[in-house]
Amino acid sequence: MLRTAGELFRRQGYHGTGLNQVVAEGQAPKGSLYFHFPAGKEQLATESIDLLGGELRQAIGAVLSAAPDPRAAMLRAAALLGQALEGSGFRDGCPVAVMALEAAADSEPIRAACDGAYDSWLEVIGGYLRSAGVAEDEAGPLADFVLSSIEGALLLARVRRDVGVLRAVAERLGAIVSAAALNRRERA
Amino acid sequence: MLRTAGELFRRQGYHGTGLNQVVAEGQAPKGSLYFHFPAGKEQLATESIDLLGGELRQAIGAVLSAAPDPRAAMLRAAALLGQALEGSGFRDGCPVAVMALEAAADSEPIRAACDGAYDSWLEVIGGYLRSAGVAEDEAGPLADFVLSSIEGALLLARVRRDVGVLRAVAERLGAIVSAAALNRRERA
Repeated sequence: MLRTAGELFRRQGYHGTGLNQVVAEGQAPKGSLYFHFPAGKEQLATESIDLLGGELRQAIGAVLSAAPDPRAAMLRAAALLGQALEGSGFRDGCPVAVMALEAAADSEPIRAACDGAYDSWLEVIGGYLRSAGVAEDEAGPLADFVLSSIEGALLLARVRRDVGVLRAVAERLGAIVSAAALNRRERA
Repeated sequence: MLRTAGELFRRQGYHGTGLNQVVAEGQAPKGSLYFHFPAGKEQLATESIDLLGGELRQAIGAVLSAAPDPRAAMLRAAALLGQALEGSGFRDGCPVAVMALEAAADSEPIRAACDGAYDSWLEVIGGYLRSAGVAEDEAGPLADFVLSSIEGALLLARVRRDVGVLRAVAERLGAIVSAAALNRRERA
């Protein structure tokens, strides 16, 4: 039911998704929804963000740690997201962004869940940057920059129905990360 | 009525905003809505995106053209968006992003309106980059990169309830744009 809810929220937004639809598409009795999620829709939202955010964290971590260099790392991370976007008819971009834009200002639990998901991805990206040779104090801000650029590119790719911008942004990030890693080695 | 609709869509999403609410908050008779917008909600959405997108295009253009250097240009453009976000209790970020995420996949007119708004900002940013000395063939891709990074940073700023990330991303973009402009002059 969490997965169904997460997919619906991601595609239709928080306000546009009713509990009845979650129950119908999740093929579960309505009573079980209130049993498992006594706080209702808001709890369903925060737990589905945790679920989808945790899965993406794992996927990003696997892609980054297997990449031979920063350019490949950025391109493969972008490809992971680009394939999901393209494969869903440009419906499934970031699993957190819609909720962040639409519901986070009015719900502290939803805001905290979105923030937690982004933070978990930033931790993985920051860890990768350090392992690639980026200086300790630079890894956090550069991770923010990498995630910002990719999130925005996902948005542009969606309205263009073309993932080219995602690839181009990742290519540029690869060069920026490579330079940051090199810069550190030169200082050392 | 377009402005009311645009603000509601921006804060609540397309699916979460009903025509009755637009009529009530816009203080207009319901008949006038169908008179001016015979295609209903979808038309209200596309025209409100055009309106808010056009206003932001003008505001970005004014900020960029008055900036003394690329660093100031990026910081001031980010500040323009950051102030709107902070001043609205972290409700009003990009006026197009919610619609792009939530409604563009299912409505070709809404997708095209979002794409048109982004394109109009990209044109302004690209024009600024050329005037700052960035090479002709580099200005378009770099404008994509600048807009992507700022859009993503707006998202992170919103869930953190802190515009610090927006400023940090803009600072980094300033350095990247300065380098791109310098690089061109060195080649010349």
